[in-house]
Amino acid sequence: MRYSKLFGKTIREIPKDIYLTSHQLLYKAGFIRELVAGRYFVTNLGYRVINKIVKVIDEEMEMIGSQRVMTPTLHPLSLWQATHRDEAFGESLMKVKDRRGSEFVIGATHEAAMTEFVKKFQPTFKDLPIIVHQFSSKFRDEVRARGGLIRLREFLMKDAYSFAADDKQFMETYWDQYNAYLKIAQRLGIKVQPVEADAGALGGDFSHEFMALTEKGEDTFVTCTNCDYAANTEKAQGILEDKNSQEKEMPLEEIEAKRGLNMEEMALFYKVPLWRLLKTIIFMVQGKSVAICIRGDLEINEIKLGHILKTADFRIPEPEEIKKLGTVRGFVSPLNLKVDCFLIDKSVLSVKNLITGANKLNVDYKNFNYPRDLKNAQIVDIALVNNEFKCQKCQKGNLKLKRAIEFGHTFKYDDFYSKALDAYFTNKDGQQKLLLMGAYGIGIERAMAIIVEQNNDERGIIWPKSVSPFDVQLISIEHSTKCIVHSEEVYKELQKNDIEVLYDDREEVSAGAKFADADLIGIPVRLVVSERAGDKIEWKNRDKKETELLNLKEVIKKLSL
Amino acid sequence: MRYSKLFGKTIREIPKDIYLTSHQLLYKAGFIRELVAGRYFVTNLGYRVINKIVKVIDEEMEMIGSQRVMTPTLHPLSLWQATHRDEAFGESLMKVKDRRGSEFVIGATHEAAMTEFVKKFQPTFKDLPIIVHQFSSKFRDEVRARGGLIRLREFLMKDAYSFAADDKQFMETYWDQYNAYLKIAQRLGIKVQPVEADAGALGGDFSHEFMALTEKGEDTFVTCTNCDYAANTEKAQGILEDKNSQEKEMPLEEIEAKRGLNMEEMALFYKVPLWRLLKTIIFMVQGKSVAICIRGDLEINEIKLGHILKTADFRIPEPEEIKKLGTVRGFVSPLNLKVDCFLIDKSVLSVKNLITGANKLNVDYKNFNYPRDLKNAQIVDIALVNNEFKCQKCQKGNLKLKRAIEFGHTFKYDDFYSKALDAYFTNKDGQQKLLLMGAYGIGIERAMAIIVEQNNDERGIIWPKSVSPFDVQLISIEHSTKCIVHSEEVYKELQKNDIEVLYDDREEVSAGAKFADADLIGIPVRLVVSERAGDKIEWKNRDKKETELLNLKEVIKKLSL
Repeated sequence: MRYSKLFGKTIREIPKDIYLTSHQLLYKAGFIRELVAGRYFVTNLGYRVINKIVKVIDEEMEMIGSQRVMTPTLHPLSLWQATHRDEAFGESLMKVKDRRGSEFVIGATHEAAMTEFVKKFQPTFKDLPIIVHQFSSKFRDEVRARGGLIRLREFLMKDAYSFAADDKQFMETYWDQYNAYLKIAQRLGIKVQPVEADAGALGGDFSHEFMALTEKGEDTFVTCTNCDYAANTEKAQGILEDKNSQEKEMPLEEIEAKRGLNMEEMALFYKVPLWRLLKTIIFMVQGKSVAICIRGDLEINEIKLGHILKTADFRIPEPEEIKKLGTVRGFVSPLNLKVDCFLIDKSVLSVKNLITGANKLNVDYKNFNYPRDLKNAQIVDIALVNNEFKCQKCQKGNLKLKRAIEFGHTFKYDDFYSKALDAYFTNKDGQQKLLLMGAYGIGIERAMAIIVEQNNDERGIIWPKSVSPFDVQLISIEHSTKCIVHSEEVYKELQKNDIEVLYDDREEVSAGAKFADADLIGIPVRLVVSERAGDKIEWKNRDKKETELLNLKEVIKKLSL
Repeated sequence: MRYSKLFGKTIREIPKDIYLTSHQLLYKAGFIRELVAGRYFVTNLGYRVINKIVKVIDEEMEMIGSQRVMTPTLHPLSLWQATHRDEAFGESLMKVKDRRGSEFVIGATHEAAMTEFVKKFQPTFKDLPIIVHQFSSKFRDEVRARGGLIRLREFLMKDAYSFAADDKQFMETYWDQYNAYLKIAQRLGIKVQPVEADAGALGGDFSHEFMALTEKGEDTFVTCTNCDYAANTEKAQGILEDKNSQEKEMPLEEIEAKRGLNMEEMALFYKVPLWRLLKTIIFMVQGKSVAICIRGDLEINEIKLGHILKTADFRIPEPEEIKKLGTVRGFVSPLNLKVDCFLIDKSVLSVKNLITGANKLNVDYKNFNYPRDLKNAQIVDIALVNNEFKCQKCQKGNLKLKRAIEFGHTFKYDDFYSKALDAYFTNKDGQQKLLLMGAYGIGIERAMAIIVEQNNDERGIIWPKSVSPFDVQLISIEHSTKCIVHSEEVYKELQKNDIEVLYDDREEVSAGAKFADADLIGIPVRLVVSERAGDKIEWKNRDKKETELLNLKEVIKKLSL
């Protein structure tokens, strides 16, 4: 490909609101443009990377016996309603009516559709396990489309599904995918950490996320400093060190407290650490009120809360509702609070003589002690883990919080979908049994962005060889006939040897600008033809400083390694 | 691939409403299943064919300098409104609102989106021509989804677009695509005839359809028996032989006519050929009435009518409207008809003394003559051509009507889109000039169906080598250990040599059933391992009767040719 003919050139200036490194570099280097928020154009440079990512994933899927298939994008709404996935996805699911009034979902995921597909062929035990995958567009109307390709409203996804006869057979397909994901990440030049995860809106209770470590990642997970425990922050469980639970329980005491309204100001007022305070938060859950007490230095994990409440439909109360409950913002206390239900995080057990509000402005209680001062509360594990927690698995190490971007996600559903959709297979005895199912997803544009996040320097992208848009970037440095003839010859010879070349043949552009463009675009090998080097060609790896002079034969040999 | 592990097996019985050969065979052989009307699942067998079709097209696009890109599926409605394409597509265009109330079109085609894409990079004359293509899903809410994969509501499409600086440069890109389409069809094993076509809802005035001849095709086109003229029926123009225009004009005469209401019954009643009758049809066009007179043996071409009326928004009148216009169904006559406008097809000029209705029940006029009996009418060319027409190009040959399925379509738009969307390039003098544009489409699933329509026999599909899901189908005929060991060995050896094998390893299935399945699936080469053949392997081409015995080395050599 001649750079002069390439549709989509590099630029130096980009919009100021582009903050993520991968977004900046892919935009500058001419790989992507935005049509509207969350919907992107991809140039040929970008397509070449995506195509190579798809090939790597496709190969690894084939290696574990998965068959590539195709499914429609629009699904009858009824398919989603059967498992209430339309409610679970809520407003992020786009729906459309056709001219006949039939309602369709614009596919956000394909579990139900794929289950229908498998049903069409009435499988028997001989056909199992069935493992299929596809590369298809997914549509999710995210509240905010963020970070370029990281959170898109439509994107290409590799989604695989396995259907098995029993748990043993299922788990083999699950771990095959798990191991394939590690191999895929490695081949793509992505460093990942698999972590235990929550399945979220997709259903199921066993799940792993493959986390790519990045400084500006939107996800967080924890690892243990001692053992191999790793889980995403929403799923993670940890042990809190005891604070002062051996202290003697003092009598409850009402005190005046002309203090600020948040925990930090309250701690400053009393000159105590945050953990000495009791944080009480009220949620409205489908018309009922729930108060949650937690240690003042911790946050509530809303995913865990959703599991306890068995719904994601909860919110903080409106001012009138707070009033009705007989309390005051900033001074909420479980003592004499008129809520329907109390939940106490187990962290509260680690502290004695806590300070809490008193449901009156500028009044607090000292020496709150559980369970002495609160009956009928349910003890729960609802805290978001942080660096304060110890590992629950080995009971020794400390949990360490890390920022990351989710690269892939694997789900075990058991019969969640097959039960709702009547998806059976015939077993050896001729009986109809429910299929056991799992699903396995990788976002393709996001994978491209993660590669860039993890492989760049101040001058631009550094593509791993496996996914680089071209094998080499060839630069003709001078505009003399001799130099042009030589570089044209090199260009043709490389192409003849099936080497993908991006040939910067522009005549009006300086050598410096060509080098800067090459560094920005990030092809792993740069070849320079110049008068000075004569018949030789200058070879430079994108990630190294040194150059070497080689003849054409040596160049071709080195590229074919 | 082991057939025992293949997801999607053959079946013998299929739903009775499946009438098209390609639909029947692809369904029986296990390539496709319907989710809902017009939306299909494709198994791995089907995917393999589609993947090969995509590769052939992609290679030919690259050969003519096209760069593969990706674009979003959801487009802001405003992009479509700029050229009124939302109105032109009407109800077949699906629209959806996002959670923020923004309106989107679910992409039915990508002219406007692609124009936006090109604008993002502010092209100069040095970048032109820009030729890009993609393979993306298209969504068209067809009134009726027909014939399996022929008319889908969502389908994969190769759509290419070219943007040029002037007409000469543009036409080079157009004819490149035209020639690439001929090559693609040939490589896919599809016989096509390019014909002049109408651009329809997409806009533009120069266009070709690539028609694949099939007995049950839903499209028709004409060719000339003498010259190379070929056009689709909607676009075709022809010359009608004179009938009796030299006859003396007789006086208009009102007569009683207790006859049937249609042309055929009228001709029987008068014992005259259909061409002696005047057919008058009324259309309601945006509140106005238009009467069209045409020779009794001809039909109106609604595409041509749309061009004359400059809208596709016309319909036949309701009973009350017919009454108001002062006429009676079956006896409509241009004489004293209270319509807003008259159009006369030029065919009427070839006949004297026509018989027409008289706008009264059971009354006709004899000897209607134009222009004597009708003033203020506009002469138009509005007849649908048929085998009665002579070629307008060579003026010698006869037009012959043929049935076909549209395989591809090429469009020249000039500045239709760029003008509406402000898509400019900078020319040599630094001036902003409108880009000239064309678009070029091939439906991928439809291409698969056309291949099957043109390549089959009573036993099943006969895939051309270029798109066959596998290179060979290997059958192990007996279940003896010796036979199984031999076929397993052959299977492995073929795979080692990068030959794609579908290996029918089923143990409980008879040789006859395996042969029948192989013929149905249609892989071009069948290999049989049997006790009788010993170390040799039986080779049979799907489209031939003869078999030959070869050793493994010979088989591999022959397959690598």
